[in-house]
Amino acid sequence: MAQLRIALAQINPTVGDLAGNAALILDSALRAESEGAHLLAVPEMALTGYPVEDLALRPSFVQGARAALDRLAADLADRGLGELVVVVGYLDGTPNNQPRLGRPAGSPVNAAAVLHRGEVLVRSAKHHLPNYGVFDEYRYFVPGDTLPVVRVRGIDVAVAICEDLWQDSGPVAATAEAGAGLLLSINASPYELDKDDVRYELLARRAAEAGCTLAYVNQIGGQDELVFDGDSIVVDAGGAVLARAGQFVDELLVADLDLPAATVSTDTAPIGSAPAQDSTASNGMIIRRVVATAEPVEPYEARPGAVTPRLDDLAEVYQALVLGLRDYVRKNGFSTVVIAVSGGIDSALVAAIACDALGARNVYGVSMPSRYSSEHSKDDAADLAQRTGLHYETVPIAPMVDAYLKTLADSGTPMTGLAEENLQARVRGTALMALSNQRGHLVLATGNKSELAVGYSTLYGDAVGAYAPIKDVSKTMVWALSRWRDEEAARRGEVPPIPRNSIEKEPSAELRPGQKDTDSLPPYEVLDEILDLYVAGDHGREEIESRGFGPELVERVLTLTDRAEYKRRQYPPGTKISAKAFGRDRRLPITSRWRESA
Amino acid sequence: MAQLRIALAQINPTVGDLAGNAALILDSALRAESEGAHLLAVPEMALTGYPVEDLALRPSFVQGARAALDRLAADLADRGLGELVVVVGYLDGTPNNQPRLGRPAGSPVNAAAVLHRGEVLVRSAKHHLPNYGVFDEYRYFVPGDTLPVVRVRGIDVAVAICEDLWQDSGPVAATAEAGAGLLLSINASPYELDKDDVRYELLARRAAEAGCTLAYVNQIGGQDELVFDGDSIVVDAGGAVLARAGQFVDELLVADLDLPAATVSTDTAPIGSAPAQDSTASNGMIIRRVVATAEPVEPYEARPGAVTPRLDDLAEVYQALVLGLRDYVRKNGFSTVVIAVSGGIDSALVAAIACDALGARNVYGVSMPSRYSSEHSKDDAADLAQRTGLHYETVPIAPMVDAYLKTLADSGTPMTGLAEENLQARVRGTALMALSNQRGHLVLATGNKSELAVGYSTLYGDAVGAYAPIKDVSKTMVWALSRWRDEEAARRGEVPPIPRNSIEKEPSAELRPGQKDTDSLPPYEVLDEILDLYVAGDHGREEIESRGFGPELVERVLTLTDRAEYKRRQYPPGTKISAKAFGRDRRLPITSRWRESA
Repeated sequence: MAQLRIALAQINPTVGDLAGNAALILDSALRAESEGAHLLAVPEMALTGYPVEDLALRPSFVQGARAALDRLAADLADRGLGELVVVVGYLDGTPNNQPRLGRPAGSPVNAAAVLHRGEVLVRSAKHHLPNYGVFDEYRYFVPGDTLPVVRVRGIDVAVAICEDLWQDSGPVAATAEAGAGLLLSINASPYELDKDDVRYELLARRAAEAGCTLAYVNQIGGQDELVFDGDSIVVDAGGAVLARAGQFVDELLVADLDLPAATVSTDTAPIGSAPAQDSTASNGMIIRRVVATAEPVEPYEARPGAVTPRLDDLAEVYQALVLGLRDYVRKNGFSTVVIAVSGGIDSALVAAIACDALGARNVYGVSMPSRYSSEHSKDDAADLAQRTGLHYETVPIAPMVDAYLKTLADSGTPMTGLAEENLQARVRGTALMALSNQRGHLVLATGNKSELAVGYSTLYGDAVGAYAPIKDVSKTMVWALSRWRDEEAARRGEVPPIPRNSIEKEPSAELRPGQKDTDSLPPYEVLDEILDLYVAGDHGREEIESRGFGPELVERVLTLTDRAEYKRRQYPPGTKISAKAFGRDRRLPITSRWRESA
Repeated sequence: MAQLRIALAQINPTVGDLAGNAALILDSALRAESEGAHLLAVPEMALTGYPVEDLALRPSFVQGARAALDRLAADLADRGLGELVVVVGYLDGTPNNQPRLGRPAGSPVNAAAVLHRGEVLVRSAKHHLPNYGVFDEYRYFVPGDTLPVVRVRGIDVAVAICEDLWQDSGPVAATAEAGAGLLLSINASPYELDKDDVRYELLARRAAEAGCTLAYVNQIGGQDELVFDGDSIVVDAGGAVLARAGQFVDELLVADLDLPAATVSTDTAPIGSAPAQDSTASNGMIIRRVVATAEPVEPYEARPGAVTPRLDDLAEVYQALVLGLRDYVRKNGFSTVVIAVSGGIDSALVAAIACDALGARNVYGVSMPSRYSSEHSKDDAADLAQRTGLHYETVPIAPMVDAYLKTLADSGTPMTGLAEENLQARVRGTALMALSNQRGHLVLATGNKSELAVGYSTLYGDAVGAYAPIKDVSKTMVWALSRWRDEEAARRGEVPPIPRNSIEKEPSAELRPGQKDTDSLPPYEVLDEILDLYVAGDHGREEIESRGFGPELVERVLTLTDRAEYKRRQYPPGTKISAKAFGRDRRLPITSRWRESA
């Protein structure tokens, strides 16, 4: 056995920010060195950010990423970190590739590089390319077929990338055949509900298959519609957790490992950047052995690895929403947000999340009462402002609504019913955008997943916004998160941010006198159950009815959901928190005549 | 040699409309029968429509498609069409498949079935799955490995599906090895500029490789963001065009072919729905031989196939836009549209397209003048209405704009500059939606590709609309199409729809006094050239500069384009007409820090 101190950097890169990401990696290396680590790993595509989408197809970006990698290797050496072996995820291209229909232009690869002594010791490409859910990697990358096995301090370390662990065969099997002492996996693995449980079980299984300890590093942070939770782990072949980082926090996880010393002869193995020594595993993967440092470290006293406890489910979701919002605002170059606060629970929860993400001084709440707004709505909105400390202002919408009603009637089209209801919501949307354009705030939309699923919202009205923090949170979870956040405040001895009345009152859009959500929709507990079966579960009408829901109710919900697809496509991005969120996971043809209820 | 009369039905299916699509196929079969055809082919996924997107993952839809296929086979026989061999594209599942991460749920396939005498004679699945440009087939389907070779009247007919022709190896090579007398290809191949030329060259090459005549059938019609052009072709192994259908028209193309009689022994070949006879081609494809009818037809006098001349480029694009708009409106259950007519060229072209697609009586033009609208704008809008005969009305926006300006100023935020300009555009967007909601029109947005590419439009303002007919048409092409349409009218002795003044005047958004597009943008001829290099060509800054554009100009355009990505993502669907359109072909991460100009 030989000792090795590894450092896993769960950092927060930004797509396209090559210089900024390189600086994050360099900083991690400095911290790792000061911790005495021998090996540092940063996440999948940490140098470019993830997901790069169409940037992968632009030759100048691929060249930029390659150049940034070379610069990073040189900078590490210049800063005296040349002996630290650094595993970095980045974007590479395939040189001399022939353009071919169906192959992404430039044949880009989702790559890993091992840096040592100022050089790129070995490069490899992700083998399994996910193309489901939020992933589109078949569109952007070509698969690799090589497993690098790098000798570090006398231990053979195999390097795999993200999906290579999730799918059967490939790099894990080759790792076992190569007799590696450690399998290092670099990841950009988005958060979803219960992901931490799934992840641990997978890692324990793969460590057993590889027959060695597995070190898993994942990024944190929000990037567009995704949020990454970190949760980096080291697990041994028996499934024991040796170290585990926190969730949603920037952290350098350091662990002292006792690993089998390499037994494969290194007599002919090349040193440094000399040509590598290849063999072929029985599944066809090429095992590429390179040597960074052959000599084991002198025995030292190991420290136990930190194992951070997991957050409970509601805390986890709330943290995901806070981080997703903070990074969307920051990475888009904004610092302040504006929110329409109605006194209802959705806008109250969004405001609480925004205050936690950005600080109340960067959050602007606008009350936009109409003639149908109740007194309690205005009071509850003001109460929210007082509790959280956000900036609060009032813009009455009656003058604009009246101008529309009169002008449209004068030109021959009096407004009635739904058209008049939508008009009010759109007047508010335009007012929010006016404040945004004039003062530079980013607009947050406050729609939740349940109402968006059934189209209970106004396009260009309450759907206006650059980011919709709770678009993937069902109404029942909106209530649960609100209660949790208030209880959390009470536990900490702070003022609960969300007014009790907003949580307890009956939901209403207040677009006509006495309106209630239940005039148009089933109770949310029922609605959310059906939506979960239909949208997340892809179950058909018969299956849903068999769970005890009446045929008329099921028909109503399914029809509303199918018809709302169009609106949802135009909905702005927000944080995904569930395994089967909207967006890429529910992409029906807009003009489809197929109706489950037909 | 043996004779065969084939019929290729370039029909217009609707995604999800199983009953309606089956009726179209049945109608084609009746027409084919009355033409004396022996073999009928309808397009790829004609029974389900294309693209089905997430519907492929819903088990109840796959079951529905399979049941519809069985019903169609039975209906054909019931109508006395049992002897006609019918090749149908549809959606199928893989029975007893094991769920596996990374494999689409239910393992759906993009399938072809051969129907004969009331039965499904053989089924096969598409081998090459495109996952680039507008295609996402890796997400939705699993690939097939079987080439059906069906004996029809003594001739062996191989069946392939769309992409199977575009990519090397696979079904075409297996067709040659199988010694088939005819390769039949069913397609749902979207239109793009010059697609007809590319298509002919491909088909001639593949016919030579297969060593036999190739019959290609493609659908027509608009489906969401795509438009299909038909252009069905029969080409022999020497590249001669034996028959060719029109573009963008519903048509049954009938051709009499002289084909090599099958020489493979049929002694052991099964008849009808009995088990098929399989062999394996050298590329691993399974060749599955089945027999519909072994006896050649009695010699008859062949008629020459029709070869419809191609449209010229501008006519082609204009027809694509007309058909795309008509089908989007119709397939979404609308019959009328409303358009903001400003007197400018973009709204004039959209109105002309809408009148051609739907009839002027279904088109509502709304003039919404502001204090900055010039007299010529109002006159030109009225002139357009007069020329086309569309409904014309006026809704002045000053009352609403004034109400906003006063109310926002009173609550502490006076509007200035861009915020005030955007406000006017948004007041118009809300007015359009009010008319739409009250009267049931579908709103058309009038933005063109050039201005959308650089973000020269107002989100929730002029970008409002369910469909944007010219979102993929550059400004220079807007002018060219407008001139073409007016000249076409003159040739036909009709009133040119587009006012000459709208074509010739300098473009202006008229959101402030004396505003011109060139205050903010380079001349459109220059802008369009740079956009073509950057967006369609994926060229970087250095490459563009090397074409003779100054560094400052290039930096300005590239920065505008990168920053406009976010707006474009929220843009409503419209017709794609170019190989590298926006949408799936330019999907940059919203928060990317990578700037070509940085």
